[in-house]
Amino acid sequence: MKRYFPILSWAPSYGRATFEADLVAAVIVTIMLIPQSLAYALLAGLPAEVGLYASIAPLVVYTVFGTSRALAVGPVAVASLMTAAAVGEIAAKGTPEYLGAAIALAFLSGLMLLAMGVMRLGFIASFLSHPVISGFISASGILIAASQIKHLLGVSASGKTLPEILGSLWHNIGGINPFTLIIGIAATAFLFWSRKGLKPVLQNLGLSARLAGLLVRAAPVVAVFLTIAVTWLFGLEGRGVHVVGEVPRGLPVPALPPLDLGLWASLALPALLISIVGYVETISVAQTLAAKRRQRIDPDQELVALGGANLAASFSGGFPVTGGFARSVVNFDAGAETPAAGAFTAIGMALATLLLTPALYYLPQATLAATIITAVLSLVDLRAIGHTWAYSKGDAAAMVATIVVTLVSGVETGISAGVGLSILLHLWRSSRPHYAVLGQVPGTEHFRNIRRHRGIEVPEVLSIRVDESLWFPNARFLEDTIYGHVAADPAIRHVVLNCPAINFIDASALEALEAVNAQLKDSGVKLHLSEVKGPVMDHLVRSDLITHLGGQVYLTHFDALSALAPARTRETLELPRCETAR
Amino acid sequence: MKRYFPILSWAPSYGRATFEADLVAAVIVTIMLIPQSLAYALLAGLPAEVGLYASIAPLVVYTVFGTSRALAVGPVAVASLMTAAAVGEIAAKGTPEYLGAAIALAFLSGLMLLAMGVMRLGFIASFLSHPVISGFISASGILIAASQIKHLLGVSASGKTLPEILGSLWHNIGGINPFTLIIGIAATAFLFWSRKGLKPVLQNLGLSARLAGLLVRAAPVVAVFLTIAVTWLFGLEGRGVHVVGEVPRGLPVPALPPLDLGLWASLALPALLISIVGYVETISVAQTLAAKRRQRIDPDQELVALGGANLAASFSGGFPVTGGFARSVVNFDAGAETPAAGAFTAIGMALATLLLTPALYYLPQATLAATIITAVLSLVDLRAIGHTWAYSKGDAAAMVATIVVTLVSGVETGISAGVGLSILLHLWRSSRPHYAVLGQVPGTEHFRNIRRHRGIEVPEVLSIRVDESLWFPNARFLEDTIYGHVAADPAIRHVVLNCPAINFIDASALEALEAVNAQLKDSGVKLHLSEVKGPVMDHLVRSDLITHLGGQVYLTHFDALSALAPARTRETLELPRCETAR
Repeated sequence: MKRYFPILSWAPSYGRATFEADLVAAVIVTIMLIPQSLAYALLAGLPAEVGLYASIAPLVVYTVFGTSRALAVGPVAVASLMTAAAVGEIAAKGTPEYLGAAIALAFLSGLMLLAMGVMRLGFIASFLSHPVISGFISASGILIAASQIKHLLGVSASGKTLPEILGSLWHNIGGINPFTLIIGIAATAFLFWSRKGLKPVLQNLGLSARLAGLLVRAAPVVAVFLTIAVTWLFGLEGRGVHVVGEVPRGLPVPALPPLDLGLWASLALPALLISIVGYVETISVAQTLAAKRRQRIDPDQELVALGGANLAASFSGGFPVTGGFARSVVNFDAGAETPAAGAFTAIGMALATLLLTPALYYLPQATLAATIITAVLSLVDLRAIGHTWAYSKGDAAAMVATIVVTLVSGVETGISAGVGLSILLHLWRSSRPHYAVLGQVPGTEHFRNIRRHRGIEVPEVLSIRVDESLWFPNARFLEDTIYGHVAADPAIRHVVLNCPAINFIDASALEALEAVNAQLKDSGVKLHLSEVKGPVMDHLVRSDLITHLGGQVYLTHFDALSALAPARTRETLELPRCETAR
Repeated sequence: MKRYFPILSWAPSYGRATFEADLVAAVIVTIMLIPQSLAYALLAGLPAEVGLYASIAPLVVYTVFGTSRALAVGPVAVASLMTAAAVGEIAAKGTPEYLGAAIALAFLSGLMLLAMGVMRLGFIASFLSHPVISGFISASGILIAASQIKHLLGVSASGKTLPEILGSLWHNIGGINPFTLIIGIAATAFLFWSRKGLKPVLQNLGLSARLAGLLVRAAPVVAVFLTIAVTWLFGLEGRGVHVVGEVPRGLPVPALPPLDLGLWASLALPALLISIVGYVETISVAQTLAAKRRQRIDPDQELVALGGANLAASFSGGFPVTGGFARSVVNFDAGAETPAAGAFTAIGMALATLLLTPALYYLPQATLAATIITAVLSLVDLRAIGHTWAYSKGDAAAMVATIVVTLVSGVETGISAGVGLSILLHLWRSSRPHYAVLGQVPGTEHFRNIRRHRGIEVPEVLSIRVDESLWFPNARFLEDTIYGHVAADPAIRHVVLNCPAINFIDASALEALEAVNAQLKDSGVKLHLSEVKGPVMDHLVRSDLITHLGGQVYLTHFDALSALAPARTRETLELPRCETAR
């Protein structure tokens, strides 16, 4: 029961001290979440209240099903951008169909995550390599920031790719609204300054470093209140400053997502991509925070919890949610000890929805854009390209390709290309494993790579060690390699495959070995195996390979050579040892 | 030059004996290829002459660029079925658009293969595991055989999936033509019988086993001549027996494929799938035959040769070609010694196109259907499911899924699902590598898996050996595993990762290690490495991991334990050795 309802593992022992810690964290996260939830709804092209709705029910569901003590779920930047991209294909912004499609997207994403969780497919996150996900998030950050510039300038612009967005901005640059521009620049400057400059100021006022650090997170709310006040006082709405406008007061009414199979079919792929990206983000932050306190999370249960949160978002009129990085870190730093902090945040957001919505009428969209821009630019990490390049050129190339494709073709193509590239790179590496031709080290029973050590070979015996499990990506490589050596040296009568590094042989590699064995037999060469691991041998005896093997299976490679070339092997054993590299 | 024009490696020393051997092989392959080329054109939904055209120019190009001495390229069953499926989506059978699309498909497939060859992407074949390709070919065989039943019965039927085809046949079963049925059944029975029964009869007539074996391959031509004669003599065309009809006499006129970007875009995916399947088939048979004579093929050059052959097919009005399995084996058995045999076969096919086409008028389509059915049913190998299941349930499941999807959803979905499943299974396996917690074997400096051997652990040190390279599919597993052990045992102060089985660490796994190192540091635990391989260490020193490592890098695992828990390690060393498994 505790496995499926992790709440049961902490709720029974819930005490006053934990309650207080969770409550403090919840208050701080709520203050941070109010402007963010509005801003990300705007980014997704949805009415502001949808962001509030997506920050209530999903948090309660995560409290029940989540295994991370500190994860804060809700609307996040990248998922909001992906929502806008997916839903924008199907309906026009501002229409009921657009909202319906966003709700259906949360529903599908929830179903998929839940299904993957029940089938324990947490490994699905391994479809994305770190460099690719990092490149994708950087590129998304740039795209998001670019898409918000129009709100800072008060012009209209559109586009799903960087060239489109910049072109559209350039085209409409003439329509800049000076009041919007002033609010936008001021809010952005204040928010950027607050990230570094506000904390020392607060500390100088006598606040503790920790409290000052947490109060910095309230800077967006300060910006929100100040700009609401200015807009209202000076009547800027009448001067062309776009405001959030009427936000319906009251909690969301539970409802079903649109039941339209055609709509679901066209949203299936975006839903899958949002699910995977959201899950990777969630699991990364959850794991990082859990490790800091030597706690455990269950990756498969996290799929269930995130799936449930998205279904809850959908049923309460929200859009796709995931675990947010910055928000979870704030929750953790503010001292959240259990997922109850999430439930308290939900209460805070519900109160905000009930009480604060009238005040939001005069909130300038430029302020929300400033909030988004400051939040997402911290996601952009282009220096990672250099680090990755220094370590692995292949990984760095995949990263750059993901960034470029995302910027010029949009998020869906970008992340799809990233998944494809990750897998391609992995298959390419798997397809050419390290292998060594072995020679006997004089004076010993050891065999080493003759290219790295002085080793003595026996002309009629080819000794090969493959340093990798054998499976379909390298099955052909194995055949190629063995046939290549045998074709190049007509003296060879025996091939001994040294297997200490082989942990697994799949059906493709088994067939390749059977083919090698049969072909070598035809041309008068025997295939032998040495040092096969126990579990691999357990598997092999169930196949025809061992029955039809031209040669033998030897316990050690020395045994093999002693049997196949006894005179030469013994002679080498008696040579003086000399391990200088060639 | 020899690498790009392999003809240069054998043509200069071409002599009379080789010429005679190649000529004999070419005559036999030509006799086999005439009915096959007509039949596969029919299967692809194309006019009969297109099959002949696809058997001339491509063979000449392969002679120049191919590295296999025995491969026979031309129209094959599975590629023809895939062509029908792809082109059927775009145009109606019998229209010029249909033919144009088939030609464009050969062109695109040729371009893709050529590009992959130039970029040396031969590893692309590793996208398909053996069980998946075997399942796909079996299912294609069943689909092809089912699609030909209508020709045996003389009814009309259509469909791209098994349920569609069978349903359509059932619906039209009333229209059976008795003359067609007799020809169809007789031809099928004769061809099935000839595979096993003809050889002993010929041997009883005094022929050598080899000659008898080769003459068996002429059985389809015998069936063709007999049924042409019967149809002509009894005027069966007038009694509802469908015949091949007018076949244009003369060689194909060189022409360009349709230049239509929209058409190309819609054919791109099918062209890629045909290219990969065709290449896998080609390379498998080429490698098998080369190994029998200790010859070498170059997988990347084979991509170039196959790409050139498909471009040649396209420019001469043909459809996609690949290396045929049965045909290449016949070529090999008949004694072909160089690719010149292919050029001679092309001459034979050109002569057939010039001289035999009038005779083909009365050839019943039922005979061609019988040829196809007997050829493809030998591709169906459902017993492979059982063999694979006994060895690996995961591989067998992928195979069955590929078969089922191909049968019920058609070839394109089938092969796509197969590619997806191969990769999924590989990633799933990669994502959970074998790992062992190590203990010191008493009385030795060795460390072994404590679940398999008696080993002594030190409470404050966790020794873990991962038996796999570290890369993105298992990066999270690594984090999970280490955090899990550390969270479960508060006594742990040191984690030593024993790395002798790690051949590679990609950027994702490096980041995971850096994260593990940082998180462990935060919770007061040091991460150490031991027995890191040379090439891996060369890589790691270029990263931040070694600089920031909480612990040390030790040459041997014993060194690590001697440094971290000197008293206990020495004590264990002095214990009497006792290697009974726990």
